[in-house]
Amino acid sequence: MTNPTAAILIIGDEILTGRTREGNAHFLAGELAQAGITLRQIRVIPDDHAGIVAAVRELSGAHDHLFTSGGIGPTHDDITADAVAEAFGRAIGVRDDARAILARHYAARGVEFTEARMRMARIPEGAALIENPVSAAPGFSVENCHVMAGVPNIFQAMVAGLLPRLQGGAPLISRTWQLMVPEASVADQLRALAEAHPEVSFGSYPFVSDGGQYGTNLVTRGTEAAAVEAAASALRAAFPEGA
Amino acid sequence: MTNPTAAILIIGDEILTGRTREGNAHFLAGELAQAGITLRQIRVIPDDHAGIVAAVRELSGAHDHLFTSGGIGPTHDDITADAVAEAFGRAIGVRDDARAILARHYAARGVEFTEARMRMARIPEGAALIENPVSAAPGFSVENCHVMAGVPNIFQAMVAGLLPRLQGGAPLISRTWQLMVPEASVADQLRALAEAHPEVSFGSYPFVSDGGQYGTNLVTRGTEAAAVEAAASALRAAFPEGA
Repeated sequence: MTNPTAAILIIGDEILTGRTREGNAHFLAGELAQAGITLRQIRVIPDDHAGIVAAVRELSGAHDHLFTSGGIGPTHDDITADAVAEAFGRAIGVRDDARAILARHYAARGVEFTEARMRMARIPEGAALIENPVSAAPGFSVENCHVMAGVPNIFQAMVAGLLPRLQGGAPLISRTWQLMVPEASVADQLRALAEAHPEVSFGSYPFVSDGGQYGTNLVTRGTEAAAVEAAASALRAAFPEGA
Repeated sequence: MTNPTAAILIIGDEILTGRTREGNAHFLAGELAQAGITLRQIRVIPDDHAGIVAAVRELSGAHDHLFTSGGIGPTHDDITADAVAEAFGRAIGVRDDARAILARHYAARGVEFTEARMRMARIPEGAALIENPVSAAPGFSVENCHVMAGVPNIFQAMVAGLLPRLQGGAPLISRTWQLMVPEASVADQLRALAEAHPEVSFGSYPFVSDGGQYGTNLVTRGTEAAAVEAAASALRAAFPEGA
């Protein structure tokens, strides 16, 4: 039993120009690890129709799931829904169920339901809606492509609604062991441990403390709990000075 | 004169498992905008040899520059240098100039120059070294592919040494105008402004303030200063309530 695979596609010029530091991919990466879905790629691309169509086709074809973030709001630069519809050869238009959700939301708040807001009810044919408990305008899933908002609190709320509907696998388990020595000084022993525990992934992450001291975080990861714990025990035994 | 294009390739399981929040791409995105190099894609992939080779070939072929981050340390999971060498069909081995840099660094600190540390002197044939003023182990450029460390302070120091050597273009200029209204309420006027200023890119970024109020940042971007300023002026005139 191998876990399902996934990619994340972030759509937005604001990330590529350095204006905004992306955080949705990091959030979703953690959630997917918990859900037993193996994240194989994160990609950030511009607000460009042809580019989105091509990336959606490539990444949805190569993975069990594709999650997108960004470009489903009411303004002219929100072009994700149309691009995803084209990628899957679906028609797109204002859909009654999405319009009703928005109409109810705005009526309850005394906000006018303008033409611009109606844009957020454009949903590809046959898509399943993803609930937006923050600001109503829904995301949607077309086949294995899950389209969500870029605003972080909305993205997170959509993920919370979506993930329980997906078939996951065994959660990724990781154990970290921190040593206050440079990475190179543990390299040989670490390589031997990695070879002795082939079913577990060993990672080594150097850092410099605020006080300027070199340190290394050693991480064991896998989906078989017993194997990860055995590898972590061997690591602790090899480097008893860690914590 | 169009600006040169670039992609960033981040290599590291620790990002895809949600352990680490990536920050190097955000830092470099801002530097590239200043340098007049247009960033077209950011991609994050696992520590996998074949995957790195394929991504390096694709992204270096499709852009004027490719910048990589991660996987050039002393441990078994540091496989970027070998993968980049293969991508460009170059031999790789310990190079005298890189070894001399490391030998000097360790000798000055009374640190043993071990076999593991020697791994960091493995450089593809014909590559130009990128200086590492933090911990000596150099990055390198092969053709249009610039290979740098993943540790943030080392990555930033390498970028500072590398970027002045690259031919840039016109810096990206952006102006932001903040309104405390929901995005949908500005959509129609914004679309008209975008159509009236086709040489400038107009972005619209909704947010929710800490106090729960909806707001929107409107951004004009371009490389022609006069055009960006004219667009920003038109934006301020259309939404005088902004700041």
